[in-house]
Amino acid sequence: MTMTKGVLQIYSFEDASRLGLGKSELGGKGYGLVEMVKLGLPVPAGVVITTEMCRSYFANSGSFPPGFEDKVVEKVREMEARTGKRLGDPATPLLVSVRSGAPFSMPGMMDTILNLGMTDGVAEGIARSVADERFAYDTYRRFLQLFGKVVMKVDGREFEAMIEEVKKKTGARSDVEVSASEWKGIVSAFKELIRRKSGKDVPQAPEEQLFMAIRAVFESWYNPRAKEYRRIYRISEDVGTAVNIVEMVYGNLDDRSATGVAFTRNPSTGDKSLYGEYLPRAQGEDVVAGIRTPLPIEKLKEAEPEAYGGLVGIAARLEGHFKDMQDMEFTIERGKLHMLQTRTGKRTAQAAVNVAVDMVSEGLIFEEDAIARVEPAQLDQLLHRQVDPRMNVKPLATGIPASPGAASGRVVFENADAVSAKESGEATILVRPETAPEDITGIAASEGVLTSRGGKTSHAAVVTRGMGKACVVGAESIKVDLKRGLFQVDSVVVRKGDIVTIDGGTGSVYVGKVPMVDPELSPKVNTLLSWADGIRRLRIRANADNPQNSARARAFGAEGIGLTRTERMFGSPDRLELAQAMILSSTREERMEHLEGLKPMLKEDFKGILKAMDGLPVTIRLLDAPLHEFLPKLDQLMPEVARLEVLKGDDAELQKKRDLLQRVIQLSEHNPMMGHRGVRVAMSHPELYSAQAAAIFEAASELVGEGVKVDLEIMIPQVAEAQELKAAREIVDREAAEAARRSGREVRYKVGTMVETPRAALTAGEVAKYADFFSFGTNDLTQATFAFSRDDVEGKFMALYLSNKLLPDNPFETLDPAGVARLMEMAVRDGRRTRADLKVGICGEHGGDPRSIEICHNIGLDYVSCSPYRVPVARLAAAQAAVKGKLQASSSV
Amino acid sequence: MTMTKGVLQIYSFEDASRLGLGKSELGGKGYGLVEMVKLGLPVPAGVVITTEMCRSYFANSGSFPPGFEDKVVEKVREMEARTGKRLGDPATPLLVSVRSGAPFSMPGMMDTILNLGMTDGVAEGIARSVADERFAYDTYRRFLQLFGKVVMKVDGREFEAMIEEVKKKTGARSDVEVSASEWKGIVSAFKELIRRKSGKDVPQAPEEQLFMAIRAVFESWYNPRAKEYRRIYRISEDVGTAVNIVEMVYGNLDDRSATGVAFTRNPSTGDKSLYGEYLPRAQGEDVVAGIRTPLPIEKLKEAEPEAYGGLVGIAARLEGHFKDMQDMEFTIERGKLHMLQTRTGKRTAQAAVNVAVDMVSEGLIFEEDAIARVEPAQLDQLLHRQVDPRMNVKPLATGIPASPGAASGRVVFENADAVSAKESGEATILVRPETAPEDITGIAASEGVLTSRGGKTSHAAVVTRGMGKACVVGAESIKVDLKRGLFQVDSVVVRKGDIVTIDGGTGSVYVGKVPMVDPELSPKVNTLLSWADGIRRLRIRANADNPQNSARARAFGAEGIGLTRTERMFGSPDRLELAQAMILSSTREERMEHLEGLKPMLKEDFKGILKAMDGLPVTIRLLDAPLHEFLPKLDQLMPEVARLEVLKGDDAELQKKRDLLQRVIQLSEHNPMMGHRGVRVAMSHPELYSAQAAAIFEAASELVGEGVKVDLEIMIPQVAEAQELKAAREIVDREAAEAARRSGREVRYKVGTMVETPRAALTAGEVAKYADFFSFGTNDLTQATFAFSRDDVEGKFMALYLSNKLLPDNPFETLDPAGVARLMEMAVRDGRRTRADLKVGICGEHGGDPRSIEICHNIGLDYVSCSPYRVPVARLAAAQAAVKGKLQASSSV
Repeated sequence: MTMTKGVLQIYSFEDASRLGLGKSELGGKGYGLVEMVKLGLPVPAGVVITTEMCRSYFANSGSFPPGFEDKVVEKVREMEARTGKRLGDPATPLLVSVRSGAPFSMPGMMDTILNLGMTDGVAEGIARSVADERFAYDTYRRFLQLFGKVVMKVDGREFEAMIEEVKKKTGARSDVEVSASEWKGIVSAFKELIRRKSGKDVPQAPEEQLFMAIRAVFESWYNPRAKEYRRIYRISEDVGTAVNIVEMVYGNLDDRSATGVAFTRNPSTGDKSLYGEYLPRAQGEDVVAGIRTPLPIEKLKEAEPEAYGGLVGIAARLEGHFKDMQDMEFTIERGKLHMLQTRTGKRTAQAAVNVAVDMVSEGLIFEEDAIARVEPAQLDQLLHRQVDPRMNVKPLATGIPASPGAASGRVVFENADAVSAKESGEATILVRPETAPEDITGIAASEGVLTSRGGKTSHAAVVTRGMGKACVVGAESIKVDLKRGLFQVDSVVVRKGDIVTIDGGTGSVYVGKVPMVDPELSPKVNTLLSWADGIRRLRIRANADNPQNSARARAFGAEGIGLTRTERMFGSPDRLELAQAMILSSTREERMEHLEGLKPMLKEDFKGILKAMDGLPVTIRLLDAPLHEFLPKLDQLMPEVARLEVLKGDDAELQKKRDLLQRVIQLSEHNPMMGHRGVRVAMSHPELYSAQAAAIFEAASELVGEGVKVDLEIMIPQVAEAQELKAAREIVDREAAEAARRSGREVRYKVGTMVETPRAALTAGEVAKYADFFSFGTNDLTQATFAFSRDDVEGKFMALYLSNKLLPDNPFETLDPAGVARLMEMAVRDGRRTRADLKVGICGEHGGDPRSIEICHNIGLDYVSCSPYRVPVARLAAAQAAVKGKLQASSSV
Repeated sequence: MTMTKGVLQIYSFEDASRLGLGKSELGGKGYGLVEMVKLGLPVPAGVVITTEMCRSYFANSGSFPPGFEDKVVEKVREMEARTGKRLGDPATPLLVSVRSGAPFSMPGMMDTILNLGMTDGVAEGIARSVADERFAYDTYRRFLQLFGKVVMKVDGREFEAMIEEVKKKTGARSDVEVSASEWKGIVSAFKELIRRKSGKDVPQAPEEQLFMAIRAVFESWYNPRAKEYRRIYRISEDVGTAVNIVEMVYGNLDDRSATGVAFTRNPSTGDKSLYGEYLPRAQGEDVVAGIRTPLPIEKLKEAEPEAYGGLVGIAARLEGHFKDMQDMEFTIERGKLHMLQTRTGKRTAQAAVNVAVDMVSEGLIFEEDAIARVEPAQLDQLLHRQVDPRMNVKPLATGIPASPGAASGRVVFENADAVSAKESGEATILVRPETAPEDITGIAASEGVLTSRGGKTSHAAVVTRGMGKACVVGAESIKVDLKRGLFQVDSVVVRKGDIVTIDGGTGSVYVGKVPMVDPELSPKVNTLLSWADGIRRLRIRANADNPQNSARARAFGAEGIGLTRTERMFGSPDRLELAQAMILSSTREERMEHLEGLKPMLKEDFKGILKAMDGLPVTIRLLDAPLHEFLPKLDQLMPEVARLEVLKGDDAELQKKRDLLQRVIQLSEHNPMMGHRGVRVAMSHPELYSAQAAAIFEAASELVGEGVKVDLEIMIPQVAEAQELKAAREIVDREAAEAARRSGREVRYKVGTMVETPRAALTAGEVAKYADFFSFGTNDLTQATFAFSRDDVEGKFMALYLSNKLLPDNPFETLDPAGVARLMEMAVRDGRRTRADLKVGICGEHGGDPRSIEICHNIGLDYVSCSPYRVPVARLAAAQAAVKGKLQASSSV
């Protein structure tokens, strides 16, 4: 901070530019305007009230600091001097917008008032001087509408309803067709409405309007949708918003006036060409709200070639200055271009990658910048599926492809329905004529969004792109009937609860669930990832249980398998009977006999995976699940036996069921998660691990015989005590020696353990005596550390915990730094103290989560392992962690 | 160690005494003998082979180190010179005993051979010289019997059966009546038996006998019962045994000869008077084995006044020397007293306390010695119940009270039955004619032991006293029939599985379960505990849920209540209906209504407890159990509904049951231990904690109004994250303020948390921001740290883990130092860093376990809380920890 506390931080754009203020003081919007002033671009006159003032306001229990009003007036007087217009002067009236602007982008979340300074006198004056009564009263009603809603708290829909009524009465198809006298009537009606609802008149003194507006903008920092947005995007509550007072320019003045938004590059594809849309005879709100469908920016080239040329030139200058793609707002007043905003443009994953890679070749940024600039979560979008293009399914409708990825789900129309469906694990598509900021919860809860109105920069489009959700907007053939809970395309009716599929990459909408295909990585993604590979220290592995997934993981760049689960090898339909017989055996001999029957199948499974990875390390986890998981469930058997008992049917059948029930009861557990499973089963039933190990070593030694390279790691789950690992390791070593003796071929292998109980982490120094490697099983480790059973917690109270901020994140998604990661750090340190070359990785789901990967990098893991589809994300996240680590190291020197 | 490695450590008793060797080299028996030599007491000549030789023997894969035999022979030659007798010389034969003796007492666990040096020639020589053929051949057969069993590995029962056969044939009622020629015949038969069974003759060369015997004694270190004993008493496997070669003296020589054992004080009561028994015309084995019932030591005063007087004098000298009660073995040969052993005497809890307190007043030891000398576990015996003396139940039989405490259980006759009953949670009484060292597992598994033979120093008596189990021995009216699995007293038949009660304090045996009374603390116990109170740093509290238990805890010296569970306040029969209705409510309003109904009852509960503790701190834990615990169980409801469905009975009833089932399914959890419980329920149902807190504060404020002092601590369970505690604390604070407002009386209180999830411990620094105190809930903390569900683990594989040494202890009984205690230590440190005055205690079951209490002392807890009956144990253990800590601190200076 360059400011002294107590000084009233209210600056003209020019002064702010000279003082070199940054985004944290000016907010995003103010900063963009001030930087454009610095570059000499055409920006209206303006004043910025810094975020510090907002914080003072709240610290002051919601009142302006002493001298605040005077200072504001002083700065407005400077604006008047510069523009030659005067606030409240009917002859040369200065109108201003009062705009919010936080340091972090929160599009549409906070309030803005346009055309402030409008009074009865000013309206008359404008009508006289511009000789356009229609423009004067359209502008007045716009002021009343926003001021009434934002400042006087009148329900916005009442204003719209009044306009609709007038249009209906006069047959006007759009705002443009509403006449001057009709607008004049509407102005009277709006004033009456505000008086009726709020008990007060809209003040006719412009300064009074201004202070009320500033207060309302400050207050909007804490409105519910802004709070919700900050929760989702993890923005601190303490930041506050700046307020910009900007001279109005009028896109609604005449036919040579317009307003629009444009990106310096295509935010959907990343192509290097101006991209955007505009509305003639409109003000900014009309574009963003998606009320009228705007024209593509290319049309502007013909309509206003000079303004268009100016915009193209400005786009290039802004990119050169900010070194990133910009999202601009502009207004053309009588053919003259005015810049109203510039900010870093939100973009799709594809665009993010392409822009980043292109900018490196253009010499604008370095490789490390490119890597830092792509959100790993965004990259993940590129790995979303799309509707299989080979399928010849006819779409029900086609809209504007607004956010890529394909999604299927049940149709919902209300946010609450999306939320409750998500809680019960059901996928939904939120369908709406258009979305508004208050729909953020519904969007977050659904798989995708479909709207019948709006363009690529409409609310739905911007928000879903940020969240990486599929979105189709402006599908105009769709008629949404919210009241009846259905939508129609011609004669086809789709009701709430019906399943639809949307493809945000193509804009297609389908009825029912449509086949999708897996994504492939584009050359630019591969370029970016190859840069990432050169920078990251963490190795990336994948979790895969079969040859197909192993091959897919390699294709995505996995450098090994970090977790092969062996449960499915027992539980798949062709083996379940044998596995059950094994479990139900009453003697070890019987069990061993059944295991012998299973062994050849297990061996083939292992061969397939090892072959697919051909020399890359493969970590095979021996059986982890409790044995009862392979048996019929109690809640099926119990009623069945009860029913048979009443019916006194086939006695033999009943007896068999009863025996089975008896055994299932015997094996059932109160808390299976912490019961007889993992290495504990091997302690009581060593023959189980023997059989698995034998199958693994036979597979490996046959492959070695065939010339396939094998890098084998055998992992023991659920270890809580070093002696368990020692005993399990002895079983594995014995089978390895036995296989070597029989085949005459030595297979090199490592034995290690999942660190997934807190005690394994706490006693890692001892555990490492028997471990060649550790792999953190952070799913179970998180459960035990919190004593939260994931099965019971996620459905029941995790949502409540997150919304009440009892936890900042779902710890099953992002590693808990204070608890779980602390344990991990201790384990890494103690383990390596015992054994300096201990290899340490992670194979819980956190291994694919970017923020968790950063933690893994920081605490010195050797690798992360995640699902095959997350491998590219992990490669990028690992590189970002390395870049960040380097920056921190160099800044702390 | 004063010895150089490689030197053969074989010494005469005199040399060992001069060198000042200690128990670790000489073993317990050798040390006692050598010390007695030092004091000039009458000890036969002897040689001790140190434990180092045993370790060399095993390190040398079971062979004597070079020069070993020569050195042994050299030392035996010295014995011959001292005694004037010669090994193998028929005229003046030296016979010796070869006795094991480890540094730790392992009574009867290892082997001993008596009368070694006996050959055909020597037997003839003795018969001639002593002119007593009967003595010569009785002695020879004794040698053959032990040597045959221990060295030549012939089943000992075969020798006994042969003697029984002869006795039966001749009508002899005891060994004493067997004639010389019969013994001679037995000797021949024994030699033949050994040859037949082992394929070898007993060597006639005494040196050869000697080396074989030494080897056998070494080997007996690893016999199964010795290993089992070491496991139970936590003795290291690496210690090894010493071997003592001692000149034989003959208690079986004539009528003025005898053998016996005596304690310097009464090991049962601690009274300061010689206590013991002896057998005329017998050797030591006869007494210990309990084969003949011996005479009380007082009889010796008349029979051999000189020897008796000698023994009394020696007892006093030994106590003065060893500063502790001694357990002596002696033999009288022709009226002359010989001391064969002295060691610290095992004693009952009562005796341990009384001896320790008496010795302080006698000036023999200091208070701290007295405290260190009573095992807390032993003290626990004094808190065992006894059969209610006011009951006028006639005992079925009366035996010798051998180990105090009363116990009821099902009769078992086999060790395996006791073990399997224990596993299924059933109490047993092991009934036997007499017990032998191999019965150690059965004794450990049963609640008490009843034998029909043997005295107070018999195997059963010694072992049960050590274990603190009830024991009655020598109940001669009981006829045990092992084959038919029953015992009889006159016409009463008690079968395996029938319930009996024994009182080891009185010796009474009852059929069925007999009412028992709670123990009271004797004045000497109170003296000892008052010393302990002066020394300990830890405060002692009790866990109590009602006024009765609270009062009992205070009587035992509790300084507060560390845990009042509130579950029973909802679950007791008069409230369950209301509680269930509350849980089944679908709205918060309904729930609050039912809670209002419960509140007056809760308030009375709290008043009762707070009143009983009158100003001592009382920690009340708010509801911890998941709500479904108060509902009917799924496995009752499911078959019930299934049955009703088949029967299509009362439709209304079925529907009601179905609704209930639905709700129970909804509330049921996969892993309830880690589910929706504790503070998590309060986050979703705050009204529950509100109601509890309101009841507490109303209770407290009414009491304060009545002039009762109240020191209130409210504890929040299951916290995993500081924000949970913060939110729960807000509920409590709100109710406190509300109650204060209503009553006009401020009640001071603290709010703290159970630390029972690993994460609470890991984030203790943060949690302490909202906690006035921590109380470690080590039951749950142990579960989560190990990821062991106690319910599932203890029945299923804990026994396996302990017997396979995968774990040294059951971590649910003794705090796991490496994992759980490490977490606790971190939490104490981090918590106090945030808040220096943080009060920290423990309320898990470990709070009453002496070794856990030592850990709690060491990591700086303020208090431990345990069940009321464990309070005295905890007071003592806390003092011992303080003494130990002081010693360690001073020795590390």
